[in-house]
Amino acid sequence: MHLPGEPATPALLVDRTVLDRNVQRMAELARRRGIALRPHAKTHKSPDIARLQLAAGATGLTVATVSEAEVFAAAGFEDLFVAYPLWVDADRGRRLRGVLESAVVSVGVDTVEGARALAAQLGGADGRLRVLVEVDSGQHRSGVTPDRAGELAEQVAHLGLPVLGVFTFPGHSYLPGSQAQVAGQEADALATAAAAVRDRGLEVTVVSGGSTPTADLEGGPLTEMRPGVYVFGDAQQWELGTAEPDQLALTCLATVVSTVAGRVVLDSGSKVLGADRPGWATGFGRLLDHPGARLTQLSEHHAVVDWPGPLPRPGDRVRVVPNHVCSAVNLADELHVVEEGVLVGSFPVAARGANT
Amino acid sequence: MHLPGEPATPALLVDRTVLDRNVQRMAELARRRGIALRPHAKTHKSPDIARLQLAAGATGLTVATVSEAEVFAAAGFEDLFVAYPLWVDADRGRRLRGVLESAVVSVGVDTVEGARALAAQLGGADGRLRVLVEVDSGQHRSGVTPDRAGELAEQVAHLGLPVLGVFTFPGHSYLPGSQAQVAGQEADALATAAAAVRDRGLEVTVVSGGSTPTADLEGGPLTEMRPGVYVFGDAQQWELGTAEPDQLALTCLATVVSTVAGRVVLDSGSKVLGADRPGWATGFGRLLDHPGARLTQLSEHHAVVDWPGPLPRPGDRVRVVPNHVCSAVNLADELHVVEEGVLVGSFPVAARGANT
Repeated sequence: MHLPGEPATPALLVDRTVLDRNVQRMAELARRRGIALRPHAKTHKSPDIARLQLAAGATGLTVATVSEAEVFAAAGFEDLFVAYPLWVDADRGRRLRGVLESAVVSVGVDTVEGARALAAQLGGADGRLRVLVEVDSGQHRSGVTPDRAGELAEQVAHLGLPVLGVFTFPGHSYLPGSQAQVAGQEADALATAAAAVRDRGLEVTVVSGGSTPTADLEGGPLTEMRPGVYVFGDAQQWELGTAEPDQLALTCLATVVSTVAGRVVLDSGSKVLGADRPGWATGFGRLLDHPGARLTQLSEHHAVVDWPGPLPRPGDRVRVVPNHVCSAVNLADELHVVEEGVLVGSFPVAARGANT
Repeated sequence: MHLPGEPATPALLVDRTVLDRNVQRMAELARRRGIALRPHAKTHKSPDIARLQLAAGATGLTVATVSEAEVFAAAGFEDLFVAYPLWVDADRGRRLRGVLESAVVSVGVDTVEGARALAAQLGGADGRLRVLVEVDSGQHRSGVTPDRAGELAEQVAHLGLPVLGVFTFPGHSYLPGSQAQVAGQEADALATAAAAVRDRGLEVTVVSGGSTPTADLEGGPLTEMRPGVYVFGDAQQWELGTAEPDQLALTCLATVVSTVAGRVVLDSGSKVLGADRPGWATGFGRLLDHPGARLTQLSEHHAVVDWPGPLPRPGDRVRVVPNHVCSAVNLADELHVVEEGVLVGSFPVAARGANT
């Protein structure tokens, strides 16, 4: 692949046609289901792409950190959910107050200590700040067990913080063949949690879940879905069977730098692709135009490819599909936008490194 | 650990005392052995730290990319080695010419195609550009087999490019218990390669090798060593036994955000630590002050810790040792400098993302 005015490699490319299709497809799915779509912006960290998502029907954005919230609020987004059990110290409190000047903000809570810190910093935020109780639906990371959601919601409410509902991230859907079962666990966990909150006399307005692998399978009590990766897809989704190759919008343009002894080495290393490799993945990434190839060895600036068939030559360029697109994007300052094979511009990764 | 004026977490901290000791120790090792020290700057990407290395006796810097060379040349460094089989297209040629205006530059070559591209772009660089032939000493990444080094060196010389010598990176030293054997393979490979080049009537001025795990074990034909990680150390070195805990200069300050069901969750995820995890590592990172703890689950903003003993509380801060410090540094814009427990300033990561 050679583009007119092609960027220095390694460089991240976004196929605009595929991106638009992905954005529309998920918006349509949410519409059909009659629930809200609140895409996770940690995947693209780009106000430009978030605008496309809202134009297609998304109701707001999900972010992971206060600094991401700051970037998107500054870019004009007025409805943000920090889907994370924030520890709100004085600095984060000050920054959240800044975000609340232009946006309605929900934040996650999964401990009473976290709620107390939040209340201490932002107790009087005039209803622009809301809380969602985080529930563990089986990933066993953060979140209370569903039956404890009511007790925590009551504690949060007693602290003077408005409880909007419950949320979970079914991250254990990132395992081959798990998606249907995980979507079921997610629905059950959220139903139990929502009931537990209502049992305490509190209203539950939002029941939020979702991940890209489970997006097509979710139902039940969800009022909102929060997929992130779907905008770009990646090699994990490809191997999970939750994205087809023609849904992969982001690739890393890489140059073959060495072919000694039949080893094809690309200049797309872990400092560009990220080093993510779940145990079930067949490698550190795939090649979009060579489905049989595998990145079998990855170091900072070298990707060694197991390449079936006739080898490429030094200087050839190929398109690598990163294993985990969120990690790759967070390593780049801009995404080069390609339309019908022509470089047409770039999306700045405005929230790159906004991880506090 | 609570620092006056402490940064928002997650944040990378550098202990200045440990850093200085590491810098001096490696410089002393090279001096004692009578060889040159050319530290790899991809680890710190920081002109401030590179200046400390040169002040301690390093003769020049190693970099991995042309864009790193640009950053360090702009910061005044006049002797750079791009230890990588560069594919020099027109854009890289233009940028390398810029670097050559203020610096002497060596670059790696491992294919005749790569050498031809380099000669086409930079054939008349007046001796400020030199070539080192890359040799595979057992990592099986880039580099020719040692016996082929003579033939390639001759081809490079015929293209009008000055051949300075040979180099290797013994990256297979990143395996527990391998270091002595790998240092031996490295010495043998470099000796064979240097002899093969001399057999073609070419002079060999530089025989360059080295990695942090093998630094204490190298000998033989090396005229130059290029360790990188030693300035900071990391959890890989700790687990390989090639760095003691008191040699770990860089940590990630992290906050405990959740302790639900006894699971300790930190806000230092893969977007700050990097996702590197070799198969032999005991986790995704370690805690400096809790040697028994392990990061067993890592996602973008969550690190789940297997924590023996009394659990910390939400809001507590801990110091995480990343598995691979080069990846962590490339995710940060600055390194906060701590001296005797007090925050005294920061080192900008000037070459962050300079990966082309």
